Order: sequence, then C-alpha cells, then structure tokens
Amino acid sequence: MSIHLDGRGSLYEQVYRGLRGLILDGVFGPGSKLPTSRAMGKELGVSRNTMLNAYQQLVDEGYAQGIVGSGTFVARSLPDEARRPGAQIPSPKRRLKLSTSSYAQRLLKHAPRAGASWRLPRHHLPYDFRYGEPAYNDLPLETWSRLLGRIARNARAGELAYGEPAGPIELRQALAGYLRRARGVVCEPEQILITQGSQQAIDLIARVLVDAGDRVVLEEPHYTGFSFVMGSSGAELISVPTDSNGLQVDNLDALDGIRAVCVTPSHQFPSGGVLSLERRLSLLSWAERENTIVIEDDYDGEYRYEGRPVPSLQSLDQSGHVLYVGTASKLLFPSLRIGWLVVPQDLVRVFTIAKAFTDTGSSGLEQRVLAEFIKQGHLERHVRRTRVRNAARRKALEAAVSRELEGIAELQGTQAGLHGVLWVPELPGSREQDLRRAAAERGVGIYPVHPYYRRRPRKAGFVLGYAALTEREIDEGIRRLAVAIKRLH
Amino acid sequence: MSIHLDGRGSLYEQVYRGLRGLILDGVFGPGSKLPTSRAMGKELGVSRNTMLNAYQQLVDEGYAQGIVGSGTFVARSLPDEARRPGAQIPSPKRRLKLSTSSYAQRLLKHAPRAGASWRLPRHHLPYDFRYGEPAYNDLPLETWSRLLGRIARNARAGELAYGEPAGPIELRQALAGYLRRARGVVCEPEQILITQGSQQAIDLIARVLVDAGDRVVLEEPHYTGFSFVMGSSGAELISVPTDSNGLQVDNLDALDGIRAVCVTPSHQFPSGGVLSLERRLSLLSWAERENTIVIEDDYDGEYRYEGRPVPSLQSLDQSGHVLYVGTASKLLFPSLRIGWLVVPQDLVRVFTIAKAFTDTGSSGLEQRVLAEFIKQGHLERHVRRTRVRNAARRKALEAAVSRELEGIAELQGTQAGLHGVLWVPELPGSREQDLRRAAAERGVGIYPVHPYYRRRPRKAGFVLGYAALTEREIDEGIRRLAVAIKRLH
Repeated sequence: MSIHLDGRGSLYEQVYRGLRGLILDGVFGPGSKLPTSRAMGKELGVSRNTMLNAYQQLVDEGYAQGIVGSGTFVARSLPDEARRPGAQIPSPKRRLKLSTSSYAQRLLKHAPRAGASWRLPRHHLPYDFRYGEPAYNDLPLETWSRLLGRIARNARAGELAYGEPAGPIELRQALAGYLRRARGVVCEPEQILITQGSQQAIDLIARVLVDAGDRVVLEEPHYTGFSFVMGSSGAELISVPTDSNGLQVDNLDALDGIRAVCVTPSHQFPSGGVLSLERRLSLLSWAERENTIVIEDDYDGEYRYEGRPVPSLQSLDQSGHVLYVGTASKLLFPSLRIGWLVVPQDLVRVFTIAKAFTDTGSSGLEQRVLAEFIKQGHLERHVRRTRVRNAARRKALEAAVSRELEGIAELQGTQAGLHGVLWVPELPGSREQDLRRAAAERGVGIYPVHPYYRRRPRKAGFVLGYAALTEREIDEGIRRLAVAIKRLH
Repeated sequence: MSIHLDGRGSLYEQVYRGLRGLILDGVFGPGSKLPTSRAMGKELGVSRNTMLNAYQQLVDEGYAQGIVGSGTFVARSLPDEARRPGAQIPSPKRRLKLSTSSYAQRLLKHAPRAGASWRLPRHHLPYDFRYGEPAYNDLPLETWSRLLGRIARNARAGELAYGEPAGPIELRQALAGYLRRARGVVCEPEQILITQGSQQAIDLIARVLVDAGDRVVLEEPHYTGFSFVMGSSGAELISVPTDSNGLQVDNLDALDGIRAVCVTPSHQFPSGGVLSLERRLSLLSWAERENTIVIEDDYDGEYRYEGRPVPSLQSLDQSGHVLYVGTASKLLFPSLRIGWLVVPQDLVRVFTIAKAFTDTGSSGLEQRVLAEFIKQGHLERHVRRTRVRNAARRKALEAAVSRELEGIAELQGTQAGLHGVLWVPELPGSREQDLRRAAAERGVGIYPVHPYYRRRPRKAGFVLGYAALTEREIDEGIRRLAVAIKRLH
C-alpha cells in the first residue's frame, strides 16, 4: 500500500498530496491506521523529516489524528474544505509568501533557464570539446597539495583568524609582480583585491559603481558572467558588435551617458578576436573623455600563440578608468575560487569595504598557498609549460579542421586563449541541436555559441575548447564531427 | 637631499607634492638634475612605480623634463599654474572622479571608522581577552591538514571544475545531519546554501529579501555584521532592547511593516542572554502573523554550559519564516570562510542563483574536506572536547571575577558561547579607553562593548573572550585587570 509521487512541487507536497488523495479516495477509510512515516518513507525513499512534516500537516488540518503510543489514524469525519474542489494545498513552505527584493526579481529574470548554474553539463564523452576549463592533467597538483598541507599544518593564529578583507599582503605583492611581468599590469599591491574568482570581482564592480538604470555596454557576443550581473543590478544593457579585432570601438561614439563598458580585450569571449592596439587606445581615450569605467576581463590573456602575449588594456591606461579582472580558474583550477580585481587608488577603500561587508574575505590558507606558489616560481613555470602544450593542441585543432572540414566549416578566434569558434555556414542555427546530438552519438561533445549572443546568429556555431584534450583526441574528435556534419547535410 | 612625506593622501600624492614643493621652493633650481627615482625611492622606502608615476606627473605638467640617457631635470621655466596659490594637485588617481553607486555611498556611511575591517587589533598581549575566535591550540589541525592534502592530491576534474553554487551535495548532506543532531535544525540538504562565512549569508539575505527603505529590527546591542549589511542595503534600522533573556519580543507588537528581525537567540551578541522558550514561541507566532522573516545567527550555539544546548529557533519554526545562519568560524577557524544558510524550500532557487551570480560558489576542495571532517565524526568529537575545555575556562573566569572584582564589576552572559561582558558600574563609559590602556600596560587586552550599541551605555563595559586563554592565564589576567581597575578609581 503506497502512494504516488506526481513530481509536482517539493517532495513534501507530493507526499502530502499523495496521502491526502488516498484518504479522500477512501483507500484509507475513516478511523483506519496509516502506515508509519518510517515504513512509508523507506518505501518511497523519502527522508524521515519530509514524511513527518506531511503527516503533521494532515493532522493539523484534521485529516488524521496522532494517538500517542499507537500511531496516526484517519479522522472519522473529514474537514469540510476537503470537499471544496481543487482545494489549495497548504504547505509550511508554500504558506510563506515572502516577497523578494527588486534585485532578486531581476536575478530570476536573468537566470539561465537551466537554473542557477551556467556550467556546461558533463557528458563524459570521449571527445568532449568543453571550454572554460584548463587541462587538469597539466596541473602541478602534487606541488599544490604539498604546499597546501604544509601551510595548513603550520598555520598559526594569524593565519587561522580573520584576515585582511582584500587578501593577505604577501599574496597581493606576489600577484602585483606576476601581473606586471605576465600582463603588463601597473599597480601597487594595495590596489589589488582578492576575490572569489572573477565572478565576485564583476559583482563587486556592479555593486560599487552601477546603479539601477545606469547604461552598461556589453560586447556582442558577450560573456554571460557580465550580463547576468549587470542585468541583475538593474543596468540597461547595450550591445556593441565585435569582429576579429574585438569590440568595434567606433560604435561607442554614437552612445553617451555610458556608465561602464565590459570588455575581453585579450581574447574576446567567445568569438576570440584580439582587440587591436588602435582600438585599445581609442577605447581608453573615449573612456577618459566620457569618464566611463572600462571593465577588463583578462580571463585567459596568458595564452597567446603568435608572438608575445598582448599586454593588458590596464597597462595602457593613463587616466585610471580601467578596472582589471583576472582569475586563477584558467591558470590553475576553477574550484579554487580565487580571482583578483585591480582598481584605481581612490577606489581602493570603498572596494575593500564592499568585500569586507560581503564576505569578510576569501579562504586564508588557499590564498597563502597561491602566494607561495607564485613566489616559488611555480605559477610562471606552469603557465610556460601549458602554453607550449596548448599551442600544440591548438595546432592539432586547426590542422584537423582544415583537413576534415575544408569549405564546410571555418574555425575562428584561435590566436589566443583555450577555445575557438567553429562556424557551419550551411547549417541554420535552428539545427544546432541536431548536429549536437549527432556529434554526441559519435562520442563528440560540442557546445552552441548562440547563448552568448543577444541576437541569435542565423548560422550554426560552436565553441570548441581544446585545452582538456590530447592532440590525438582533438584529431579523432574533429574527424568524427566532420562525419556528423556531412551526414546532416 | 630628500623630500618630506606629509602623510596626506596616497603615497603617490605625497611624493608628487614633496618633489613639487622642493622645485617651487627652488631647492631644486631651474635646470638642475633631480635624484634618480630609484635612489630617492630607496631612501623613502617607496616603490619604484609610485616614484615613476610621480616623476612622470611632474614632467607631464612641465615642472621637469626627462632627457633620455641622462635623467630628469627641473624645467628652466616653471608652468604658470604653479604660481597659482593652492594649485589643485592633479593626480592620475584623483583625476578619476567616478561617482559610486548609492550602495557604495551607504557602505562608506556604515563602515567602521577603522576602515574596512572590524577585526580586533592584534596586541600580542600575554593576557588577551579577545573574543570572536576559538582556541587555535584546540584545533585538530593535523587531521584537517591530512584530509586537505589527501583530497587535493587525489582531486579529479569533477572536484577541480566549477561546482554546485550552493556547495557539493555531500557537504550539505553531512551538514543537514550535523545541524539536526547538534542544533535541532530541520531541513533537507537542498535547503542548505554554503556561504563565505556567516557574513555572506547575511549579505545574501539582505540582497534577496531586503529593499532600500524596508524596516529591519536589530537587537540592542547588536552584532555589527548585521547593521553594516542591513544599513548598506538601505534598510531603516530599528533597535529593540535585550535583557538576560535575549530580545524583548513584546516590544515587537508596537511595530508593524517590519521586513526582517535579526536575532542571536542562542547567545545574544554581545550581551550574552539566551532567548527564553516563551519569547522564542511568541517571536515565531509574531513573525507568522506579520509575515516577517527572522534571521537567526547561531554563531556559537554549540557552546552551552548548563544542561543541553538550546535547540535553534529554526527547530521550532512551523511556518517557514526563519532563515538560519551558521558558521565554521567558531567551530573550526575563521579564515576557512565557510558558513551556511538554511532557507525555506520556496526560497532555495532564488538564493542559489544569487550565490551563483555573486561568486559561483565557495572553495571546492575545502568544502569537501569539511564534508569528510563531519562524516568521519571529527567535528562532533572536536566540539565535545572544546565544550569541556571552554567550560573549564568559563569556570575559571567566573571564579576569578567573583574573587578579584567582588562589588567592583559584574560578569554577564556566560551561560553560553565563548565570551561574557564585564560591566564596571563605577566607571563611566567615557573612561573605557583609560582602563583599556591601564590594562594593556599590565599585559591585559580588553575590548569595550559600546561599539555594539546604537545608544552608548553610560557605564563602562568590556567583552571578555576566554576561549583562547588557559585557565591560569584567565586567572592571572583578571588579577591584573582588578589592579588596573582599582588604581583607576
């Protein structure tokens, strides 16, 4: 004798509705004993708490009564509203009708349909071109773990207690050196704020500098980490197109009253263009003229394959309008949740307070491990090594595409970073899912580019990440993808 | 030949102003060579960048000129504005006149004068009654480090990649069990959101549920983590007095249109009262009637010395109006930055999205370590052990106070937690600093309670934390404090 969980609403509601149904249908007649919550919970695989809540609810409403020492029994006479058709199901949870803040309502509006997370699903396909993640096999995890264990074991009060909200000074000093050497970033250590990945850096910028109604420029296509946060902050989002040289800066002249421009100059996300020097300079002088802040997301600027890495936009900034955002997610690993934000001197205090009030600081031990990791030269060694590896992977990808997909698809945006975009001109965007499925059947994981566009492109395009694959896998993956594409035509 | 740093404004400005002064005063005559930035920087202990910025600024403005290969020279004719009295000091930083958001302006208004951090200064006094921190010597740091090293070393892609924004399910399951056993909290694992300490939990609540202008009730005295965040969110703050039974709930009836009530029921912070059962029940029914959320900060509820710990307010909540906030800061160590927020079912999604957009999640490896730490029973063993130790410390404190300060000072709020408040009725609040100084001279660190009051109390009171001291230290510390107090009278 069990109940049916209809899958609508919370487990609690389903159990409650199921039991209530059986009582109303007379399956459990008046005065009859209900199965124990434990027994029924086990049968349904539902936790004890949920069962007890549901039983209690039935008792509260007069459908059943608990008799101490003997169990729960169906009431001899059912409550009236039970007969009211479509009686609202009251629920301890549902009864709560708390309105949320205007921020929360915007959050829900901008949230990806998939729920809270915009991570890619893990398909565990043998040839998975997922992007936005480094090659975990390349990580010096042994070194990292050794430092982590040692620093934790020897941690003294100073390292276990609350730390500087902006991060331990030794990390900010080490980072200032690294950022200057690797990215040309010019700053004092105290201008650096350690954040929970670049996401928190962007969120703090929005909170400290953007009010609802402010006009914020996004690249088209754009990194959704920007649009989610800026949209939720109530900003009016304005798209400016990009091409192989990045943001089309000239289009900014037509705009005014812009509060902030969100850019990915080193490797436009996701289309892959690199912002030309000419455009960098005109963007900076425009920003100074308009007194607009420029948010530079330098998420994978270390990976540049032709010539030296392009220095950051911040390195060219004379007037202090650029806020520089970086992250350890692509250099080390995302779940470390360490990023950095470089702000102009006169914004240091307010950003530090914002970080302090928001979470009082990031993980103390892991920040110290990163400081050691940089000081001992591990980070730069690691980046040099992976740059070579990723260059080989990239070469394999370009070779495979031009061999297998000549005239059928074109690969763009691979001068830098860890991904490119594969466009399939003959395939309409509406059929992206068909190709995705066909590829998956052949063990190949590909990911549509359209979620990053505010206006969906006509032709099908896919973001191909190559950092996590071997050259052989890249080769075979593209071969199989080519078969899938040709079959589809 | 050096310059004077006047301590006003950023280092950059001081250097710039100093150099400019020497030039205007003719100390560096027209055409004369300036010391190299490196030499002067070394002398002043100022970084190369700062010096270079300052020199560049002087050149930009015509005070000096750089001659490649030979150095920087004072200009033969000084720019006109140099003679304008009180000429504004332009600065690459100051030139940036970015207005900040209304949130940022409220942040600055509510920030503690001390700057961003409200941590206590570390005096390194032998008898330091600092509070808000556990005894670091009691920590099973060896076990923690072993787990940390092992989990990091064996981390696979799934653990290094972006994780669930709300935290890995195994941690939320382990916590759900722990919170039910230790604090009577009734929830499903999916109702738990892992946060960056309790501070982020409070900040997320403010963002998701509180709009500017909403009325929020604070205890008087209150935890400043609440007032900073709620004040910055633009809420109207309303104080309700507390006594030895915690918040005087009856006073709520006189209020209406209250959005949220911020309480510390297990151990009122800082005054130390424990909210009576009667008041808990009437607070809950009031909240249900008024449809107001109750934010329960259960920061040290595990430490209860007479009888069993009082279960959380959340455990009594039938209507889902309580949001439960907890933290590992007192159980383990603050720099871990792990806390938790338990929300009613129908708020799970919006809070998860808020966490995701705010920072995409907390540190993956450390969350897994905590999950293991709980599953293997280490946390509960540790809490049991420290409860015994802290009980002994508390006993020592009470004994020492009644022996040394009979009739001079009274200790309150020690039924639970890791601190009490020592009131000195004869000493006016205005003289707290005198006593603090006198105590420090005798090697004793004490901390005034008034910062937690919106209306400053007339008599002097001090928060005495005892968790970080041995019984002997507590004994001797109070003996010395007594001497200091008596001398002051």
